[in-house]
Amino acid sequence: MTHEARLDLLGQVAVNVGLGLRPGQELVLTAPLDAVPLVRRITEHAYKAGASLVTTLLSDDQAALARYQHAPTEAFDYAPAWLFKGMAEAYSGGAARLAIGGDNPALLADQDPDKVSRANRARSVAYRPALELITNFDINWSIVSYATPAWAALMFPDLSAEAAVAKLWDAIFAASRIDRDDPVAAWAEHNAALHARTTHLNAKRYDALHFTGPGTDLRVGLSEGHLWLGGAERAKNGIVCNPNIPSEEVFTTPHLAHVDGLVRSTKPLSYGGTLIQDIAVRFQDGRIVDATASAGQSVLHKVLDTDDGARRLGEVALVPNSSPISASGLLFYNTLYDENAASHIAIGQAYRTCLEGGTTASDEELARRGANTSLIHIDWMIGSGQVDVDGVRTDGSREPVMRAGEWV
Amino acid sequence: MTHEARLDLLGQVAVNVGLGLRPGQELVLTAPLDAVPLVRRITEHAYKAGASLVTTLLSDDQAALARYQHAPTEAFDYAPAWLFKGMAEAYSGGAARLAIGGDNPALLADQDPDKVSRANRARSVAYRPALELITNFDINWSIVSYATPAWAALMFPDLSAEAAVAKLWDAIFAASRIDRDDPVAAWAEHNAALHARTTHLNAKRYDALHFTGPGTDLRVGLSEGHLWLGGAERAKNGIVCNPNIPSEEVFTTPHLAHVDGLVRSTKPLSYGGTLIQDIAVRFQDGRIVDATASAGQSVLHKVLDTDDGARRLGEVALVPNSSPISASGLLFYNTLYDENAASHIAIGQAYRTCLEGGTTASDEELARRGANTSLIHIDWMIGSGQVDVDGVRTDGSREPVMRAGEWV
Repeated sequence: MTHEARLDLLGQVAVNVGLGLRPGQELVLTAPLDAVPLVRRITEHAYKAGASLVTTLLSDDQAALARYQHAPTEAFDYAPAWLFKGMAEAYSGGAARLAIGGDNPALLADQDPDKVSRANRARSVAYRPALELITNFDINWSIVSYATPAWAALMFPDLSAEAAVAKLWDAIFAASRIDRDDPVAAWAEHNAALHARTTHLNAKRYDALHFTGPGTDLRVGLSEGHLWLGGAERAKNGIVCNPNIPSEEVFTTPHLAHVDGLVRSTKPLSYGGTLIQDIAVRFQDGRIVDATASAGQSVLHKVLDTDDGARRLGEVALVPNSSPISASGLLFYNTLYDENAASHIAIGQAYRTCLEGGTTASDEELARRGANTSLIHIDWMIGSGQVDVDGVRTDGSREPVMRAGEWV
Repeated sequence: MTHEARLDLLGQVAVNVGLGLRPGQELVLTAPLDAVPLVRRITEHAYKAGASLVTTLLSDDQAALARYQHAPTEAFDYAPAWLFKGMAEAYSGGAARLAIGGDNPALLADQDPDKVSRANRARSVAYRPALELITNFDINWSIVSYATPAWAALMFPDLSAEAAVAKLWDAIFAASRIDRDDPVAAWAEHNAALHARTTHLNAKRYDALHFTGPGTDLRVGLSEGHLWLGGAERAKNGIVCNPNIPSEEVFTTPHLAHVDGLVRSTKPLSYGGTLIQDIAVRFQDGRIVDATASAGQSVLHKVLDTDDGARRLGEVALVPNSSPISASGLLFYNTLYDENAASHIAIGQAYRTCLEGGTTASDEELARRGANTSLIHIDWMIGSGQVDVDGVRTDGSREPVMRAGEWV
């Protein structure tokens, strides 16, 4: 199949599997400038699916860098609140949301960490109302990826630019099930498998998960009325969407106060252009009380200082070590991919959807049940072929959930 | 000078002459996708001038066409109201506004005129609140142009793509005064000349202008308390900006009910991708009662049927036939350029700024004084080397203002 044919299939999967776009729906699309060829495929498929309007907001790495190079220091506390408010209004009005990822993970690696963290914070605050409509599934939404030259170069520094992009595309198409005979059918089958897994875990009602492995001995208490989710979701507007393409994880909400022990990252975390490596943290009563990293430690500490919730967990997710993305052996420096290669935890904001009745419960009720609140939500990998996971029942008894990184 | 050096100068003129961007100000920039190289120059100069944030909204001709090719018919009554509302909020919050023009003037030439007119109408309605903040000079704003391949190909169909773009760039740089020794000083001098002209005309307090030439015998009554404007303007936020780069015109507000006679266009009008040629209309009591064109007549009639104000004048402007843009002998198919090559009239919405106290007067007061209201504002050229203009005083006496297209 030609590259153009595969790109067109990815556009089709994004619109019909990722979003489940409905006739008459508006679509808000964000993408890096490099991704225009995929934007055009998606735009065409969206209109063919009956979209009333596709509005694309393109971002340019060069413009982002120009700000760090030339803008006054005060500038870094500003974010385009008017634009995010507009996006929130579009979602409230029924628009679907598609993001094309693939931005250069190392773009801001050489910029002043203080400016980076202030800009991220301003952006998080301004973007929160729009983001909540997305994470609470008020609307159907999805993320797909584009193999930008900068991203490919980071992953394959020894290859030519062209070969690196080609190799990354192969990985993206494979993980997104574009290389199957019938990608739409492959996604239906995959969703069924993930739903069987979440149904099984939801029936267990574990009180906690216990992770053990090299440098890891971590008990993650689960929130009251936690729900395991994974794969396709039905949004509140009634539309079934696949919010992440690819997606291999099942995930739920930990208890913000019942996480204890030591945990070590099993893959580097790429955050705001910085690579944070060999993270080792200690939790006590749900809170990170000690954190080190062999690289990027100062950025990690800045992140943990964002707010109180930044030191507590908002998500725990299980991914078998044999998942296709893990099997590729690649480090993507991109959460959408790397989080689907290994079991992981996320510090920061919890998902309301991962709690029974969570999307309509009050903030107080959610906090009482153990759901964390924060401006951030950052996933990092703690699973590998050497990590075991036990399910711990309320009575303290336990059973194996994963052994050597695989489902029992 | 290299192309890159001239492009950088155009970016500098856009930010410092066009906008007069102030430290701490936000900038909202719109541009066609092809114009990214100029977007980057402008972004850098804006940050160097102290901008807090530059947000660029890029538009893609291919995505616009995909809608006409694939979207359901109902789609064409939608516009991104949420985005325009967001832009209006940005302006209300103090942001400046820069547009880069240069879109393919013939993009929609082959599309269903009904869809084009419905889409334009939906867009006009949704965009109006944001547009009013601009046209009323609540903020500093400007427009500059980029030589896109599609625009250049339309202007120079016999040249190679490369040669056509190079020739259009030469014309843009010349008209934008980028080829002067000191472009910023050249603009200051040009603004002084335009202001001398508007001061002279404002002192005259003409009751009407009378245009005569081949096929033209038109009396254009001026509104009560009309103001002649041209060149740099001081916006309500106190910032002096040059809203059009280039700009050669002085212009004011006609009286919506006091326009009578015949007028023939002297250049083709490019509207929504259609070329409307040899327009001949008859005005009676301010209203167009008869309109023909040798090409594009059905589009012209659709435009005139937009609303009642679409058949009445909202602007009259004087430009000498010797203006640099006219002297180039080129037809640009682009209002920003072609309107600065010849005296012109605009059907549709009047500018509040062209009336004494206009920006704070009530709608009723403005209507009483003769200012027109409409969803549209479309300029077309009626001046040439064969057209004379008289100024008519309240007592009916007259004096020559232009002879054979030149100032008397």
